[in-house]
Amino acid sequence: MMADWETYLKENKKRLLNELLEFLRIPSISALPAHAPDVHRAARWVENRMRAAGIESVRVLPTGGHPVVYGEWLHAPGKPTVLVYGHFDTQPVDPLALWDSPPFEPVIKEGRIYGRGSTDDKGNMFIPIIVAEALVRTGGNLPLNLKFLFEGEEEIASPHLPVFIAENKDLLSCDMVLSADGGQWGEDQPAVVLGTRGVTSVFLDVQGPDHDLHSGTYGGAIANPIHALVQILNSLHDADGKVTVKGFYDDVRPLTREERDQLARIPFDEAAYLRETGAVSLFGETGFSTYERTGARPTLEINGIWGGFQGEGTKTVLPSTAHAKISCRLVADQDPVKIADLVVRQIHQTAPPGVRVKATKAESGAAPYLIPPDHKGLRVAYTVLKDLYGRDPYWVRMGGTIPANAMFREFLGVYTIVFAFGLNDELQHSPNEFFRLSSYERGQKAYGMLLERLGK
Amino acid sequence: MMADWETYLKENKKRLLNELLEFLRIPSISALPAHAPDVHRAARWVENRMRAAGIESVRVLPTGGHPVVYGEWLHAPGKPTVLVYGHFDTQPVDPLALWDSPPFEPVIKEGRIYGRGSTDDKGNMFIPIIVAEALVRTGGNLPLNLKFLFEGEEEIASPHLPVFIAENKDLLSCDMVLSADGGQWGEDQPAVVLGTRGVTSVFLDVQGPDHDLHSGTYGGAIANPIHALVQILNSLHDADGKVTVKGFYDDVRPLTREERDQLARIPFDEAAYLRETGAVSLFGETGFSTYERTGARPTLEINGIWGGFQGEGTKTVLPSTAHAKISCRLVADQDPVKIADLVVRQIHQTAPPGVRVKATKAESGAAPYLIPPDHKGLRVAYTVLKDLYGRDPYWVRMGGTIPANAMFREFLGVYTIVFAFGLNDELQHSPNEFFRLSSYERGQKAYGMLLERLGK
Repeated sequence: MMADWETYLKENKKRLLNELLEFLRIPSISALPAHAPDVHRAARWVENRMRAAGIESVRVLPTGGHPVVYGEWLHAPGKPTVLVYGHFDTQPVDPLALWDSPPFEPVIKEGRIYGRGSTDDKGNMFIPIIVAEALVRTGGNLPLNLKFLFEGEEEIASPHLPVFIAENKDLLSCDMVLSADGGQWGEDQPAVVLGTRGVTSVFLDVQGPDHDLHSGTYGGAIANPIHALVQILNSLHDADGKVTVKGFYDDVRPLTREERDQLARIPFDEAAYLRETGAVSLFGETGFSTYERTGARPTLEINGIWGGFQGEGTKTVLPSTAHAKISCRLVADQDPVKIADLVVRQIHQTAPPGVRVKATKAESGAAPYLIPPDHKGLRVAYTVLKDLYGRDPYWVRMGGTIPANAMFREFLGVYTIVFAFGLNDELQHSPNEFFRLSSYERGQKAYGMLLERLGK
Repeated sequence: MMADWETYLKENKKRLLNELLEFLRIPSISALPAHAPDVHRAARWVENRMRAAGIESVRVLPTGGHPVVYGEWLHAPGKPTVLVYGHFDTQPVDPLALWDSPPFEPVIKEGRIYGRGSTDDKGNMFIPIIVAEALVRTGGNLPLNLKFLFEGEEEIASPHLPVFIAENKDLLSCDMVLSADGGQWGEDQPAVVLGTRGVTSVFLDVQGPDHDLHSGTYGGAIANPIHALVQILNSLHDADGKVTVKGFYDDVRPLTREERDQLARIPFDEAAYLRETGAVSLFGETGFSTYERTGARPTLEINGIWGGFQGEGTKTVLPSTAHAKISCRLVADQDPVKIADLVVRQIHQTAPPGVRVKATKAESGAAPYLIPPDHKGLRVAYTVLKDLYGRDPYWVRMGGTIPANAMFREFLGVYTIVFAFGLNDELQHSPNEFFRLSSYERGQKAYGMLLERLGK
């Protein structure tokens, strides 16, 4: 038997889809200053839409950057309070020429909504709003207390979210967070997210002579900053890719046997993985599987390197400077600031004579995040997904970073359950981003079931 | 008492200077295809001027690139035959905005001729032509047999000179070469050049995944080509800058005690050297002085490196490719091809798993050059310089490369004596290049004395 809220969603399907398309038409690109008014417009659109859904105290609130939208429905005394998180900003659209249809003129083709932000994250964040509407309109009530926090800076690493959360602890206080930003494993395979990695970055600049020198006249007698750079960078890993920064692994929580078993249960297709990446072989820390390496082990990655002559042919220069950008993916319980400090310290300790070495910590960073597998909300989410897909969800650790997860843990003391329905092939951040209509609809049912069960 | 040829040069001083200015007005930039007609025009100018000087069989001869100019005067039976070498092409002029006067509109200011090519090498190569004219016009004869070979591709590494010399061995056969391309140590300090370094180059390309990957999703499980690049490059030196390529030093001729003493006699001002380069300290192979390091020891220099993200801020990418350009300065008796092969072999041997590594030898290269210090012509040049400057010349080994030196040795079996009068501060290859009038005049006297003494 179909629940009333489900019937409501079904009967209003066309309107609700048209509303999503309207939402997708706002080019709310947070990275581009020219689109700041559009990000603000998207915030207003969300505000109005939440109000229309019966959500209360809805308001657009300023931050140091793009605004956030807050709303609540708190008429379920004795029931848990759940905060729904998502974002209404999008990635830029370059290269525009590769889009089959204009990125902000969404079209529906073969069961998919094509448009920038469709899966990341407008389609996903719209789901809990309309589910709340369905519950309120049909039963007059929600099964629990609900708060909403949607931000407009997720695609630029949420720079103002930590301060906003820290300064609004009471407003945002809750028993758990549901993140409507994220995804599932596959069309027929659900997953619950146990962890996301953190990130921290360091910039490395090496200065040799104060101008480029003739490599004949001076070569052999003046230190080459590229040599120094290479020497420093090579000291950061051993031959199998393990990070050799002193103290780097000190705070890494070792995988338990059970956790390793959980990850091992996810089928891994090596040939497909190599096809997908174009790499000649797998590579990484000895003694760990691929999903352990990407989900449960930290990394130190040189993201960029440059110095000296990069043109055609030869130019026998002894260059003045050389540079590298480094970022580390972190796992529980590593601290981004502490790790950046360790990297900076090791760089300075490894710096050879003859050059000036500067290592700078980037301002942004994000803590790693891990939720206990027996977290009550997570268990409920697990059963919802299992019932809906008819299969046991995988227990996964994402290699990427969702900064908000760790922020909610740090400032509100609560865990976040990633509960969203994007799929990896939906071209997030790329041309022709899309969202499956089937995911959109399944997400609605999943959210309705989850809110009901969490309220029991 | 002034020799007749000296009186001739003095009496014709104004005309000879105006002719040099005329030569300098031809923008014979060999690197720029648009200036190919100008390089050809400069060849014709040299041809006509040599003919006017009384030099015989003068002709412009084609090569695979810009032409050369040949001439001879061979009426001194029983006397040595000397080949004079120089070049009539110039460097480009960028950045043009930094020139105080147009590069090809030479001006004389405070005893200096400003203009592109003034010291490198038109001013220097013009000297032996007018000295020959003075000798022929005043005595009717030269004191020895003279051949001239001027090329138009020195500034682009003389790519067609080896073939030209190899194919014209009889035409160019001689007892020694005088290079009118080079310089002296200082305004009051002469030098004889014992050696020039060779050069050979290798390009290194590392391919990881076939497209840039998300460093969160894949980091730790797929090899980062920058890490591999850094690991390979770091294997090429030890901590004090010694090259660790296997076999690299095998053919290096060790410095004798006498050679070390010769180099040690050149005063070295460390503070001035560091000011000149802007480096914080000297750096190089343990156990060698600065002039030994730059003159008598080979190097392996990374001239350029690049890969991944080089923009502002952070981009957490696991890049697809990483690259480096490497060149080695070589000393006797290293072979450019053999050394490049050793570097390529070591790169492949050091290549870590997980990436594709390609090492490519550059097509161009030049052999190192060393003249025995007791070479008869060199000894004569030494006494001329000593008498003219009133000081003992330094015995120097240049760190840079003059490819022609080794070519004449290889194909004609003769040594080259660098006999030229540029000074290091004359901004060769830079804006506001100039040549001292005093050097121009001293060079004339020096060439006259040298030819006379070599003919005795």
